[in-house]
Amino acid sequence: MNEQLGAAPAPVTRLIEEFHRLPGIGPKSAQRLTYHLLRVPHGDAVALAQAIIELKERTVLCSVCQNVTEDDPCAICRDDRRDRAVICVVEEPLDILAVERTRGFHGLYHVLHGVISPMEGIGPEDLKVNELLARVRGGAVQEVIMATNPNLEGEATAMYASRLLTPLGVRVTRLARGLPMGSDLEYADDVTLSRAIENRQDV
Amino acid sequence: MNEQLGAAPAPVTRLIEEFHRLPGIGPKSAQRLTYHLLRVPHGDAVALAQAIIELKERTVLCSVCQNVTEDDPCAICRDDRRDRAVICVVEEPLDILAVERTRGFHGLYHVLHGVISPMEGIGPEDLKVNELLARVRGGAVQEVIMATNPNLEGEATAMYASRLLTPLGVRVTRLARGLPMGSDLEYADDVTLSRAIENRQDV
Repeated sequence: MNEQLGAAPAPVTRLIEEFHRLPGIGPKSAQRLTYHLLRVPHGDAVALAQAIIELKERTVLCSVCQNVTEDDPCAICRDDRRDRAVICVVEEPLDILAVERTRGFHGLYHVLHGVISPMEGIGPEDLKVNELLARVRGGAVQEVIMATNPNLEGEATAMYASRLLTPLGVRVTRLARGLPMGSDLEYADDVTLSRAIENRQDV
Repeated sequence: MNEQLGAAPAPVTRLIEEFHRLPGIGPKSAQRLTYHLLRVPHGDAVALAQAIIELKERTVLCSVCQNVTEDDPCAICRDDRRDRAVICVVEEPLDILAVERTRGFHGLYHVLHGVISPMEGIGPEDLKVNELLARVRGGAVQEVIMATNPNLEGEATAMYASRLLTPLGVRVTRLARGLPMGSDLEYADDVTLSRAIENRQDV
């Protein structure tokens, strides 16, 4: 029997493979997505394909803060009302959206595009650390807030960066760790609770 | 403050929306996929976009069995060695791959492209039922195996189709239900075990 008979057509197999390369998409999900696209109107599938192309063609990294932007420098770096003395360092562009939603930070940002992770072979040279140092050496910066995630890799990255930043004469700070608002002491994990006791504050 | 400042660039937001429209992709996954594509080389993202376009442009439904194919009629329907007297009716193109892998079926197929599901507003007219009836009326078919999934919708669809097919003088069969091979009686669900007892066979 012809081996091809039992196989899906080449364009189907190829898209399944492409979807499978994306993070968090297993072989079954890749199949499901592909057969879903087979069923949708032609225009819907084209819209997805075009959105992917335009994402790559119409965005660049801001030459100042390394955030994703359509215009370089980005809107935040161009904004005169932002405080140029404070830089908030984050892992990913999405983290900027989270901080902006608080409306409580009015300085500038710097996106590292990852964290130091020896397990995944990501070293400091893979991150936008040199770009951060260059900005601080520029002179106007007084404080760098390390807003990497409060986990092993995030902490290590913050420690690494602060060791390079402190000699440059800037204040290096870290986001407060403690109990999340609305949480329940009973269900807090040990590390978070220990940190909350350690860093207890006067009422 | 400018409302745009806290928002992601338009191409980013647009791709997040497009991904979010796919089944099983929530808003968080859509964000993750989009920012992943921002990081990959340009060629990788283009490869995904092209695979989507080619899926739509290079595949059609086989005019005989309704399976997805590059050439119409499909390789299985064109194959002279297949038994034209038996049609195996499945819900989705993926089900054909599963049956073909068994190498135990040598007839033809028919893809319904779904099941009757009043909950999701899918009626018989949304399925390729009329195409199946036309094939059976064609005369050469002696048996139709209803290989829809053994769940509520699959059973209802099989019942519906068999009621239309039986008057045409064909034998309508259903895949056997029972304990899956390698399973453990202790953990079998009640319905499966009841069916296995009901349909018990002589050794």
